Amino acid sequence: MLRPVQGMGVLISLCSIVFSVFAQTGTSTPPGSPARVRARDLNIAPGVFPTGKWNAITDVAGVRVGHTTLWEGDNVRTGVTAILPPGDNPHKEKLPAAIFVGNGFGKLLGFTQVQELGVLETPVLLTNTLSVWRVADALVDYMLALPGNEDVRSINPVVGETNDGYLNDIRGRHVTRKDVFNAILSAKSGPVEEGSVGAGTGTAAFDWKGGIGTSSRVLPPESGGYTLGVLVQTNFGGHLTIDGVPVWRELPKNGKSGRPGDGSCMIVIATDTPLDAHQLQRVSRRALAGMARTGSTFSNGSGDYVIAFSTALRGLPTSDTRSTGGRAKIQDEELSPLFEAATEATEEAIYNSLLQATTVRGRDGHVVEAIPIEGLKQILSKFNRGI
Amino acid sequence: MLRPVQGMGVLISLCSIVFSVFAQTGTSTPPGSPARVRARDLNIAPGVFPTGKWNAITDVAGVRVGHTTLWEGDNVRTGVTAILPPGDNPHKEKLPAAIFVGNGFGKLLGFTQVQELGVLETPVLLTNTLSVWRVADALVDYMLALPGNEDVRSINPVVGETNDGYLNDIRGRHVTRKDVFNAILSAKSGPVEEGSVGAGTGTAAFDWKGGIGTSSRVLPPESGGYTLGVLVQTNFGGHLTIDGVPVWRELPKNGKSGRPGDGSCMIVIATDTPLDAHQLQRVSRRALAGMARTGSTFSNGSGDYVIAFSTALRGLPTSDTRSTGGRAKIQDEELSPLFEAATEATEEAIYNSLLQATTVRGRDGHVVEAIPIEGLKQILSKFNRGI
Amino acid sequence: MLRPVQGMGVLISLCSIVFSVFAQTGTSTPPGSPARVRARDLNIAPGVFPTGKWNAITDVAGVRVGHTTLWEGDNVRTGVTAILPPGDNPHKEKLPAAIFVGNGFGKLLGFTQVQELGVLETPVLLTNTLSVWRVADALVDYMLALPGNEDVRSINPVVGETNDGYLNDIRGRHVTRKDVFNAILSAKSGPVEEGSVGAGTGTAAFDWKGGIGTSSRVLPPESGGYTLGVLVQTNFGGHLTIDGVPVWRELPKNGKSGRPGDGSCMIVIATDTPLDAHQLQRVSRRALAGMARTGSTFSNGSGDYVIAFSTALRGLPTSDTRSTGGRAKIQDEELSPLFEAATEATEEAIYNSLLQATTVRGRDGHVVEAIPIEGLKQILSKFNRGI
Amino acid sequence: MLRPVQGMGVLISLCSIVFSVFAQTGTSTPPGSPARVRARDLNIAPGVFPTGKWNAITDVAGVRVGHTTLWEGDNVRTGVTAILPPGDNPHKEKLPAAIFVGNGFGKLLGFTQVQELGVLETPVLLTNTLSVWRVADALVDYMLALPGNEDVRSINPVVGETNDGYLNDIRGRHVTRKDVFNAILSAKSGPVEEGSVGAGTGTAAFDWKGGIGTSSRVLPPESGGYTLGVLVQTNFGGHLTIDGVPVWRELPKNGKSGRPGDGSCMIVIATDTPLDAHQLQRVSRRALAGMARTGSTFSNGSGDYVIAFSTALRGLPTSDTRSTGGRAKIQDEELSPLFEAATEATEEAIYNSLLQATTVRGRDGHVVEAIPIEGLKQILSKFNRGI
Repeated sequence: MLRPVQGMGVLISLCSIVFSVFAQTGTSTPPGSPARVRARDLNIAPGVFPTGKWNAITDVAGVRVGHTTLWEGDNVRTGVTAILPPGDNPHKEKLPAAIFVGNGFGKLLGFTQVQELGVLETPVLLTNTLSVWRVADALVDYMLALPGNEDVRSINPVVGETNDGYLNDIRGRHVTRKDVFNAILSAKSGPVEEGSVGAGTGTAAFDWKGGIGTSSRVLPPESGGYTLGVLVQTNFGGHLTIDGVPVWRELPKNGKSGRPGDGSCMIVIATDTPLDAHQLQRVSRRALAGMARTGSTFSNGSGDYVIAFSTALRGLPTSDTRSTGGRAKIQDEELSPLFEAATEATEEAIYNSLLQATTVRGRDGHVVEAIPIEGLKQILSKFNRGI
Repeated sequence: MLRPVQGMGVLISLCSIVFSVFAQTGTSTPPGSPARVRARDLNIAPGVFPTGKWNAITDVAGVRVGHTTLWEGDNVRTGVTAILPPGDNPHKEKLPAAIFVGNGFGKLLGFTQVQELGVLETPVLLTNTLSVWRVADALVDYMLALPGNEDVRSINPVVGETNDGYLNDIRGRHVTRKDVFNAILSAKSGPVEEGSVGAGTGTAAFDWKGGIGTSSRVLPPESGGYTLGVLVQTNFGGHLTIDGVPVWRELPKNGKSGRPGDGSCMIVIATDTPLDAHQLQRVSRRALAGMARTGSTFSNGSGDYVIAFSTALRGLPTSDTRSTGGRAKIQDEELSPLFEAATEATEEAIYNSLLQATTVRGRDGHVVEAIPIEGLKQILSKFNRGI
Repeated sequence: MLRPVQGMGVLISLCSIVFSVFAQTGTSTPPGSPARVRARDLNIAPGVFPTGKWNAITDVAGVRVGHTTLWEGDNVRTGVTAILPPGDNPHKEKLPAAIFVGNGFGKLLGFTQVQELGVLETPVLLTNTLSVWRVADALVDYMLALPGNEDVRSINPVVGETNDGYLNDIRGRHVTRKDVFNAILSAKSGPVEEGSVGAGTGTAAFDWKGGIGTSSRVLPPESGGYTLGVLVQTNFGGHLTIDGVPVWRELPKNGKSGRPGDGSCMIVIATDTPLDAHQLQRVSRRALAGMARTGSTFSNGSGDYVIAFSTALRGLPTSDTRSTGGRAKIQDEELSPLFEAATEATEEAIYNSLLQATTVRGRDGHVVEAIPIEGLKQILSKFNRGI
Repeated sequence: MLRPVQGMGVLISLCSIVFSVFAQTGTSTPPGSPARVRARDLNIAPGVFPTGKWNAITDVAGVRVGHTTLWEGDNVRTGVTAILPPGDNPHKEKLPAAIFVGNGFGKLLGFTQVQELGVLETPVLLTNTLSVWRVADALVDYMLALPGNEDVRSINPVVGETNDGYLNDIRGRHVTRKDVFNAILSAKSGPVEEGSVGAGTGTAAFDWKGGIGTSSRVLPPESGGYTLGVLVQTNFGGHLTIDGVPVWRELPKNGKSGRPGDGSCMIVIATDTPLDAHQLQRVSRRALAGMARTGSTFSNGSGDYVIAFSTALRGLPTSDTRSTGGRAKIQDEELSPLFEAATEATEEAIYNSLLQATTVRGRDGHVVEAIPIEGLKQILSKFNRGI
């Protein structure tokens, strides 16, 4: 899992002691994963815009994703997922960013400073509810150790979470500093592992196994040709609807999961569109529309957050990033296609999280099943959708 | 149109001079309206909860709706819709209320004070964009004239709008004080006129004729048995999706409307659930999920607002209303069914606004067609939905 | 009062019928005003930065102020104050703007759209509480009539208010369309009339006569040399403190005004600093610190609002204004001096509103006295302040 | 330092292994502290209301404060301050709470959930900027270990910070889990240690040594007789003004501290007034007015936060706390005296933080001097204030 990462060499040598046991850890693969699909494999393609090459948040140039999957014994089913903005040191190359709170149940760290200053200065990390502070603390260690940050005395880590306590021994708080470093250092471009991995190892959505999902959209040239990518950590409830089809009414479960309905969804958006923080906030709100279309009921205990950042202006002086540093940015009047892209990609990323997730047995014998692909195909077909 | 309204007798005699010409005005019916349907007539029933008796916002006891439809010559296609909370004098019986701004393009009046104090003290009025201040001014006249308000020196009228300028000579600003009084005084319980009436006379949605729509939900006894009703003024764009069916891909238009895509949606929620202002704000956010399911793209220029109020605590001392005056209210943990109800009823109210609206020819010969019911039935059938 | 205004000739001829009776109206001067002073005349100079030439909001190039004072019979003591951004047509030359809600009691119109889009597209008007919608409606008439706005179908007027109902027959709603046009068309640069004029005719602060006040600050060259001006409409309560001196403990009133303590303060900030909307929002918050230093107790019923706009980017394409249109703007790290300037100028503007206001007798014989200058000098001297 | 704390016996035995080394740690007293005063000793008494018995946040019944002061070698000058709500297990007895963001520079943890749900479920902890996540993580350990919390899988710790990096080796991140437990377990009622202790060990304000300060107010019987207490961690800049006296112009410093001007202020408010979350939010905003009167310039980099909670409703069922659980609460119209109390007590708490702080020499030989009491007395006297 730990691959050489461009430009990270200096850091790795710096921190070699800390990382020395990496090789043994890695992201163990859960046993018995059957072949899974993505939404496009079922001819499910929400909206109007084409995807990027990987149909992933990594289609935004320079954005990388890394997972640490913790799968230990019978009860540990959790992990860390890291979304890295381009470049080696985000504190030196702050990016315009925004966070939208759909429902503020949850412990998203970093909110108030992003709200005030409109910049992202660290990778975005996702994990479980009770590990969020420890993960942030490790992320600060990582940031302080980066070459060039020797005089930094303030860091605003952005870390989100959902509660995987049904499958995972969440009170055991098994995520360690090493797991955080691993997720960051293993981050890479290209295809993104989805489903029951990283921060999605122990999560569930619509009473099926959820997890990590991703998708992307490319705007047409007349709208600027920009790319927008979304990555989600799904852990929420509702009435599952796929491409408009009421799956919730049609698909019997072999056994009710018994899991309490409330949950959360973390949504991370990256784009190479030149946007300022306020525009990103407006984009981020639209992601919830995509979530709505999957059947979320946005229940009382669901912590639903959207974190959005723009990579377009990397390389500006640190001090001049919040509103694009005087560089050309797109106009508000041009935002509507991007709003659609955020909605579409979020909807599809959520489907991918379900379609890629594998059945997981965890804490106290709790099981959350993967949604059955064959049964789903029949339902889609019944409603004249899918393949 | 002007019927005797319970408890309004005093006011009517007080204001008889002002209202003397009422009889001649009324709400003229647009010519040539063919028979239209509601969503339930097509077997479209979003969600899981049953409707109230009228499937309308008026299912919430005491809530009344009145329309003034302005249909004059070739160019005037606009109006006023009034939603009245229970009782004769809402300034004396303030109700817990909240307003959620989905997208703040728009001129919703009354926002900041509702945000700060959490109370509604007037009827809620809807009209066209350029008439909103005049309508508010007339509403203040109305409120100041109410018996018992002789010493009132501050009023916070809540008035929303969408832009009907494609069909209506909006710059002519044809809505008058009399039209406002008419809408208020004609308000009644029971079935609500939908489609091209009142503030919906000149609006459009998804390039079809939109307008006023309404729906309601009743929670099961174990969730309190409460009623929640929604009324919408639809004037927005996107990819029309009905009950999950991609109507936008299937239904050709005889002629593109030529109308610019941006628009807005006003959503009014009433409920008899005992809620405080903050809970109402949380409920109001969920209405946007219903709007998302109809295919809204929440474009840059769409002013999307939700106004919610609870009637449960009428009769409290004026000073003690914001957070339910010490009376029992439901707990946050009990809110989730109500969230669903708000989502479902909003989705259905939007469908009703389209299905009830009739084709309108207006300003400069612009035409916006009603969505064809027969064509729609075939599409729904193709996707195994509808009747 | 109606002077020729640069670039307004076209409009005046356009609207000549409407305006024909202007000459007779004007702003009558209240009888018996004794000589009043400004804060600087008493050697009161809050903070560290120098003022502009006029020590007024009009020190920001192109910003103009106009008043209509309504003083009729025994009971009408009210008016309109207009603050005009540079240029003839603010709808064609939108400016970055922000509104901060200190305490949302009050009816400030235009908030949600400024919040969403970050632009000002009309003059800012101030008036009394119950006239705010009528004033906005007249402002829309004015805007729609401006050359170049023939196709405009949406306007977001920004109008604020405080409640002058103790001295003024506020329920009579005496402000007319003509009064609004008068205030706008009489707006000019140079010294600004303060005290019991315009929207300040009938207001009170700290139980003394309040009204309109203004002040400005010029940053040193190393901070950019920018100008920031403030105009206030004071109508609030508390413990009057001038330059740190506890006037409230020292200055007996000949007769308690009997006026209820609650009230409001409207604060308008203009600056030629190149700022985007978010930066302006941050600047606007600091104005409340100036208000705090005068002894405001920010009571429950005080509607305290700050409206801020930047003139630096006039002449940009309409579509590109919210975040400075790609032009150089100052960095967040450079904002602190501007924050101080906003605080200082607000504090001094409030003092000026009191020191310039004259005793007013109004509705039902109510009297609010001007703060006595001689008595005040003695108190300042006792505390080693003033001259 | 570790005293027996009421009701904590069970916990202590539970956690005895963890705490075993407590005795050796404790809060070391910085050497050479001269006698210091409080504001009242100088006859400085902002506002109109009397103080509680201790003139401290602990005047609110059941509220306890504990400090861990880290003073090690030449470079470690930091700590933790804990403010405990009444009772043994705040997760079982959630209290209505609110957080107001004056300026969002800073890492306050717990904001979004308090904003959404309006409850406090942990002690409030303060520390240095780079320790905030580790402190939160330890606080979660503490909460999870409390008797009765065996099934808790979600905790929302509220932890604030200011940056003590000028005096403290903040990058060394010296605060440990043990220090957090120590602060919590040593918390007690009665007089509160102020100045260079706990989270205030290394902070500075107005270029003088700042730190922890506290004050309280008791409302008169006709306003309910309620108590409101404030505790501050001062670390901000501006023009120091004490009781209106421009100390900043009068008091020469022996040597400029060289410390960068930006900083932050954390303000914690406790009250026994029955308030809901929204009312607490309104109270919390008023604290900034007190801060304004001390001369804060609210600079760009100052993270200014107010955390407020009400103890009035302890003992309610967990699920029914946000808006006072149906119990009588005070009306909005009765809030104004409480607003004043919050302003006054904050102003005085800031003075106390300066007057109690002792000169500290720390990292790299940096020194921040305590404000000289004798010099200050002369200045106050010059302006006819003080004793």
